[in-house]
Amino acid sequence: MLGREEVVTVEKALELIFKNCSPALPPEVKIKIEDFYQRILARDICSPEDLPQFARSTVDGFAVASSDTFGATEGLPSYLNVTGEILMGEEPSLEIKKGTAAKIATGGMLPKGADAVVMIEHVQQADKKMIEVMKPAAPGENVIQAGEDVRKGDLIFKKGHRLRPQDAGALAGIGITEIFVYEKPIVSIISTGDEIVPAGSRLKPGQVRDINSFNLAGLISEAGGNPVKQGIFSDEYAVIRNIVEKSLGDSSMVLISGGSSVGTKDMTAKIINDVGKPGTLFHGVSIKPGKPMIGGIVNNKPIFGLPGHPAAITVCFEQFIEPVLTKLTGLSENKFKGRKSSVTAKMAKNIASSSGREDHIRVALEERGSEIWANPILGKSGLITTLVKADGIVVIPLRKLGIEQGEVVEVRLF
Amino acid sequence: MLGREEVVTVEKALELIFKNCSPALPPEVKIKIEDFYQRILARDICSPEDLPQFARSTVDGFAVASSDTFGATEGLPSYLNVTGEILMGEEPSLEIKKGTAAKIATGGMLPKGADAVVMIEHVQQADKKMIEVMKPAAPGENVIQAGEDVRKGDLIFKKGHRLRPQDAGALAGIGITEIFVYEKPIVSIISTGDEIVPAGSRLKPGQVRDINSFNLAGLISEAGGNPVKQGIFSDEYAVIRNIVEKSLGDSSMVLISGGSSVGTKDMTAKIINDVGKPGTLFHGVSIKPGKPMIGGIVNNKPIFGLPGHPAAITVCFEQFIEPVLTKLTGLSENKFKGRKSSVTAKMAKNIASSSGREDHIRVALEERGSEIWANPILGKSGLITTLVKADGIVVIPLRKLGIEQGEVVEVRLF
Repeated sequence: MLGREEVVTVEKALELIFKNCSPALPPEVKIKIEDFYQRILARDICSPEDLPQFARSTVDGFAVASSDTFGATEGLPSYLNVTGEILMGEEPSLEIKKGTAAKIATGGMLPKGADAVVMIEHVQQADKKMIEVMKPAAPGENVIQAGEDVRKGDLIFKKGHRLRPQDAGALAGIGITEIFVYEKPIVSIISTGDEIVPAGSRLKPGQVRDINSFNLAGLISEAGGNPVKQGIFSDEYAVIRNIVEKSLGDSSMVLISGGSSVGTKDMTAKIINDVGKPGTLFHGVSIKPGKPMIGGIVNNKPIFGLPGHPAAITVCFEQFIEPVLTKLTGLSENKFKGRKSSVTAKMAKNIASSSGREDHIRVALEERGSEIWANPILGKSGLITTLVKADGIVVIPLRKLGIEQGEVVEVRLF
Repeated sequence: MLGREEVVTVEKALELIFKNCSPALPPEVKIKIEDFYQRILARDICSPEDLPQFARSTVDGFAVASSDTFGATEGLPSYLNVTGEILMGEEPSLEIKKGTAAKIATGGMLPKGADAVVMIEHVQQADKKMIEVMKPAAPGENVIQAGEDVRKGDLIFKKGHRLRPQDAGALAGIGITEIFVYEKPIVSIISTGDEIVPAGSRLKPGQVRDINSFNLAGLISEAGGNPVKQGIFSDEYAVIRNIVEKSLGDSSMVLISGGSSVGTKDMTAKIINDVGKPGTLFHGVSIKPGKPMIGGIVNNKPIFGLPGHPAAITVCFEQFIEPVLTKLTGLSENKFKGRKSSVTAKMAKNIASSSGREDHIRVALEERGSEIWANPILGKSGLITTLVKADGIVVIPLRKLGIEQGEVVEVRLF
């Protein structure tokens, strides 16, 4: 037999990559907090001040000395004289003395002498000046104390944290409007193949357009990287080696798409070996689609040779490239952030799988009453439309021989 | 009692909004396919051509006439004369005649006379010119036929579809490099409150910075809208009415943040009523945090008055604003696209809830062995850090009186 090669498991392939690569953290760049999307903090952030800086009411009502309300009931209310109203955004000039209260709105600053707020719902107007408080207020009730949200000096974010909308709000709250984040890692995409032409081209017989670089660029962007298309190159050693060396210099990761013919595959693996150490780490993975995947490290930079089939691109990206790219972004490990969503469904058809390979089945989802069913999209992995019709992917593990109709599966959504 | 008001359920509130609003689809804008992220197609797309335009090999091997291989076995192989090699990207000049084969790589164009490809793994080299085929090839085996991926005229995308990376690839494949998508709906954010100052300001006693407009702008962007901060305005009828009217003219949706004091709330509801029909539809919702939420429609445009507490902003956005905004983007309904991810966890503490309101509990997740536990973040909804510390939200439904320690819950991740 010609062209047989040893394959490794997905787990082993990733282990080889991570063992041989200790990438430096990306350089820092200063951004405005409103541009937080997909950004990862490059420095710890401690609060420069208390938030809030003064005791505030959390309700609409009356600022009181709590001791004035002890024992108050509907039958035997406390009577308090309203001596004024707290103006929003200003330091109150009035003071709460025994037997008095001041009208206060949510967010208003507590006046001197007040240690609680009685909700407007627990108050009746006795006359123009006097209120009846019908429920006692405990000290601190309906009040956010100065520094209760954040204390000056508190560590509120660790570096490596991916920012969310509420985090931008918190930063605004403590007066931080600019932050240092990591630059997004540049990922070079090299398209190879004498048959590949740009998407805008008219086709001659034998030619196809460059589908994969568009799919890859989108996947890279969504995973927090900065995709750079290096162009389409012909399958010649000197040409590919030249653009691979240039790309390794310019970027944090290099992807070579296409080059899936036997001669070209061997050439890609040879180039990865020739341009630096340790070179090619695996050549063939027990996964379908995606078996011809090549992975290596050159001078601490990950470099992958991807099979040419569109469905293999998506599966190999999720399994190999995304975990490695995530590490390059500087993100701290947190299983619960940026996780892909999934749904539980029932498989609509029997699906066979070979032991010894991980099968990634594209599925379209269908609601039948209250149940979700997953219809496998059967079709060659060379067909881009199998991905277009699919809502997500079901994985059949290495040692499982298939999935039966009606079996419950987890669908990782696109 | 003063200030009591009737509240509606979340379901009823949304029903009122959708019943009173039939927004027009957003205008179209032409973009390059590489800028697909978060974009929604404004037109159906039919393929202008077949994909691929010729029969292609899906493997590395030899193009053959399948009839020449019938009955071939390892013991009794078919012997074929190799008359040449198919060059990638070119129309083959050679023809497969009885008893001949041509070397072909994955993606190569099938030559005349060939109807199948024998994988290189099933072939042995007999001599320089001759191969032994050890397994029969069925007609069409290892071949993608012309038009098998997409047929000319096929509807491949319907308008209202949100584009994904593989969709950009498919469009590139059929030579479409520019598409019409919907413009992102503009959502105006009006911050109100005499105590609110811009994030960059130094604080005087009684003042706080504008946290909520940063949180809201981020949430709007992530949901596919285009946030426009109109600024911070003082709680005066004429001032707020003026900016509300301007914003209704400029945008597809208007959010008024703050104004949560009783007087201001009433003012917000009055302004929504005064500027157009049908005006305010609800004022108070049975949800915690978020009860003081106001919703209305003015001239077919949704307008919301949001409570000032940061945690209420996030909950109200997810419950009311995001579903309405999604409709304004032109997205077709598909439950499985753009769905938030969630995890199943066990509640780490007993949590009480009142019947008759939907409680949205912020939780931080923790791994204990193979289990995930959800620790409720207890703290006033006015504290932005309760959101910063949380990984997601657990909902206690209207009629449930709480969650017991160890009970299994679904956590909607941020």
